[in-house]
Amino acid sequence: MDEVDIEVVADVELDDPVLVEGLPGVGHVGKLVAEHLVEESESTLVRRVHSELFPPQVTVSEESIASLADAEFHAIESDERDLLVLTGDHQATDNRGHYRLTDAFLDVADEFGVTDVYALGGVPTGELVEDHAVVGAVGDEAQKDALEDAGVEFRAEEPSGGIVGTSGLLVGLGAERGFEAACLMGETSGYLVDPKSARAVLEVLENLLGLTVDFEALDERADEMEDVVEQMQQMEQGPSAGADEDLRYIG
Amino acid sequence: MDEVDIEVVADVELDDPVLVEGLPGVGHVGKLVAEHLVEESESTLVRRVHSELFPPQVTVSEESIASLADAEFHAIESDERDLLVLTGDHQATDNRGHYRLTDAFLDVADEFGVTDVYALGGVPTGELVEDHAVVGAVGDEAQKDALEDAGVEFRAEEPSGGIVGTSGLLVGLGAERGFEAACLMGETSGYLVDPKSARAVLEVLENLLGLTVDFEALDERADEMEDVVEQMQQMEQGPSAGADEDLRYIG
Amino acid sequence: MDEVDIEVVADVELDDPVLVEGLPGVGHVGKLVAEHLVEESESTLVRRVHSELFPPQVTVSEESIASLADAEFHAIESDERDLLVLTGDHQATDNRGHYRLTDAFLDVADEFGVTDVYALGGVPTGELVEDHAVVGAVGDEAQKDALEDAGVEFRAEEPSGGIVGTSGLLVGLGAERGFEAACLMGETSGYLVDPKSARAVLEVLENLLGLTVDFEALDERADEMEDVVEQMQQMEQGPSAGADEDLRYIG
Amino acid sequence: MDEVDIEVVADVELDDPVLVEGLPGVGHVGKLVAEHLVEESESTLVRRVHSELFPPQVTVSEESIASLADAEFHAIESDERDLLVLTGDHQATDNRGHYRLTDAFLDVADEFGVTDVYALGGVPTGELVEDHAVVGAVGDEAQKDALEDAGVEFRAEEPSGGIVGTSGLLVGLGAERGFEAACLMGETSGYLVDPKSARAVLEVLENLLGLTVDFEALDERADEMEDVVEQMQQMEQGPSAGADEDLRYIG
Repeated sequence: MDEVDIEVVADVELDDPVLVEGLPGVGHVGKLVAEHLVEESESTLVRRVHSELFPPQVTVSEESIASLADAEFHAIESDERDLLVLTGDHQATDNRGHYRLTDAFLDVADEFGVTDVYALGGVPTGELVEDHAVVGAVGDEAQKDALEDAGVEFRAEEPSGGIVGTSGLLVGLGAERGFEAACLMGETSGYLVDPKSARAVLEVLENLLGLTVDFEALDERADEMEDVVEQMQQMEQGPSAGADEDLRYIG
Repeated sequence: MDEVDIEVVADVELDDPVLVEGLPGVGHVGKLVAEHLVEESESTLVRRVHSELFPPQVTVSEESIASLADAEFHAIESDERDLLVLTGDHQATDNRGHYRLTDAFLDVADEFGVTDVYALGGVPTGELVEDHAVVGAVGDEAQKDALEDAGVEFRAEEPSGGIVGTSGLLVGLGAERGFEAACLMGETSGYLVDPKSARAVLEVLENLLGLTVDFEALDERADEMEDVVEQMQQMEQGPSAGADEDLRYIG
Repeated sequence: MDEVDIEVVADVELDDPVLVEGLPGVGHVGKLVAEHLVEESESTLVRRVHSELFPPQVTVSEESIASLADAEFHAIESDERDLLVLTGDHQATDNRGHYRLTDAFLDVADEFGVTDVYALGGVPTGELVEDHAVVGAVGDEAQKDALEDAGVEFRAEEPSGGIVGTSGLLVGLGAERGFEAACLMGETSGYLVDPKSARAVLEVLENLLGLTVDFEALDERADEMEDVVEQMQQMEQGPSAGADEDLRYIG
Repeated sequence: MDEVDIEVVADVELDDPVLVEGLPGVGHVGKLVAEHLVEESESTLVRRVHSELFPPQVTVSEESIASLADAEFHAIESDERDLLVLTGDHQATDNRGHYRLTDAFLDVADEFGVTDVYALGGVPTGELVEDHAVVGAVGDEAQKDALEDAGVEFRAEEPSGGIVGTSGLLVGLGAERGFEAACLMGETSGYLVDPKSARAVLEVLENLLGLTVDFEALDERADEMEDVVEQMQQMEQGPSAGADEDLRYIG
């Protein structure tokens, strides 16, 4: 058994593809975007990654099928550039694991001829927000203009604590390996799974990659979350209402 | 010293054997079943597994003999299919350790010609239960009919947190390696060592494998546990009795 | 840099030597015994062990010399059997580290022709004790008679939690590798560095190995500790005195 | 990807160079000194060290450029001995990582012909101090005279807890590998980033290496910190003032 095992599920030729990564993280923003792309497009599962660097567990499906912790690459063919979408339920369980898995993910990207990497995530604001800006960090100055045209904001030294985990390393290691890599982070409270923040990030991707995305499922999920938030606020505030209070993380 | 060291204690030829795993876990259900099989049958210790992935310790026997943390494989010959039973006092101490030990356990299973794996455990209900259902998760849809015939229930996305540790990986990694692997989990409170839950799992194995098991020792132990529980309930409730309160984990 | 680096400081031929290990642990009993042997005998530092498995630190001496975390083997020639004494200020910092360092220690023992291993330590009683029994655990039944003659007690399944760390593994791995290995543990409160428990263990070693040890330094240290304990008891009890209360760990 | 990756940024010949290390630690004293040297001198970035032993993250610059966690070596040519200055934002994230990174740092030092190593840091006093002594620990007795002449104090068994992390290992491993290595630690409260303690260490380096350093920027930063401390003391003490109270760590 290798430390990282990349299973070839399907062989697909992609045209000038872009890697789009969305693994679990702040507000699950990246994961929501990546899964929405996979579900709403004609997508093909091309690679499955198993690794002892993931948690030692299986998840059980609706049909009681146990499946080993993994990450998955899906191919999506598009009018402009094709997409290679990386998503899954897990990140590495330790520091070195993040480096080694990210390196393996970049190997897969290389194999498909990817040159550009968009690592998606959320940036926590600490309070509920109405308008979800998309904040960017890039490996190279030259990438900024095109991203700003697509709606990305650049803010000095933000996020102030840096970017941790796969998204950060895709940009950091990616730049070292010659990829044009950027991190696109939707503003989000940090307390809730945030489909509205995911929508904001998706709109940036639409602009960047000339995609046309159907937002319906995401908007429905956003409406559901808003109902949940309202109920929580009513419960917390009682008759004498305050506003914008901290909420526990739910989703 | 290798990371995992498999000591050949005896050489035995097994006929179409099934691997039955019961290591420590929820309610010690799996371990109780595996040890009951080994003690109540004519069994032969065939392999002993030592590993730096286990805790760095020895246990001291009644005769003051110190023995190194290990897992053991016992062979049991039976009228229908023979059994290879894996049990012990420890699981791996870190995430990668679970992957590497499980892989080594499957190597031993391979060596004996095993094709089917039953990973035994408990599924916590959070309260004391009278009736102990046996819940299943499988690597492949096709396995479900035979298991349902033997008394196993399949419930969508249960256990909801997935299955962690050796049992989960035996199914997850096992399926990847071509084994027919299933996890059979007895319902149990999660607070107590649970011989009654173990009996329920054993009855499923009887049906599945055509075994005849003497339950006496297990039933005695279940009676003892019931006395303990009653005493605890009386102590906790005092004269004004409540019911079904949380109990600390004892065994 | 290797994971474990064994520096040859001196070459000494030993006659039928016994390994005596005393690293930090419960009551620092083992370490006190090993250091007493090294200081009170004509001893020669023969091997120094450095390893990334120790904590990443240096200690600073009275002369402000920084020295890297290590373990040391000292040779002591004796009328009956020679001694190879292992001591130091550290144990491994993780589980695998314990296995790998113990294995390396046994390699050194092998190199010097050691066949018998005495791993010294303390067994916690949870209260201050006057009489310090020495409790034993062995790799093999046949070792018990000689140890009992020397004053060692054998108690079923004690210590009940097993023996963790280097001492436990010296017996567990040692037995696997063919050494006659035993753990000798002085009873001690578990809260204090315990020179009196160390004296009890030393007396057993005197009997076992035909040594003659000068106890003066150890007895002085025991007297100092007793003064400390008395002062603490007076401070804690005030005018209305109780007895045998729990004490924080000091030394 | 290697565990430690040393990128050659520039090739520079250095004359009898000294390694000066200042990574994050107590009061950030070492890091302040190293960064001050790099910023106030004509310095050249010569090596960049990336490693999976660092935290898995990128930091985001004022221009929103994400850069991978690293450590950097800068060359400074001087009238007397040239300097190789090691600094960065991170230390290793686990015990073994400290050993392996330090070993790699010493490899770089070797490559540049370094024979002397000064590992800089702070020694915590637990209270605000006016006079910042510089305390030393050396690999070899013979180094002490020259350091004392330069203003370093040697105190028996200080720091009492030893020296942990890269600074400690540079001396400990460095001495094993034949370097003349010393740890120079400025006294500091341990609660605040301490530019005044850094100035004290820099003055020692001036004496030792015949450097001329412009202290202006460091003095300005010290003044700023003093304002912060005064404000905090006023806030904490209110009208009825006390003195020397504990402060939280800020910088």
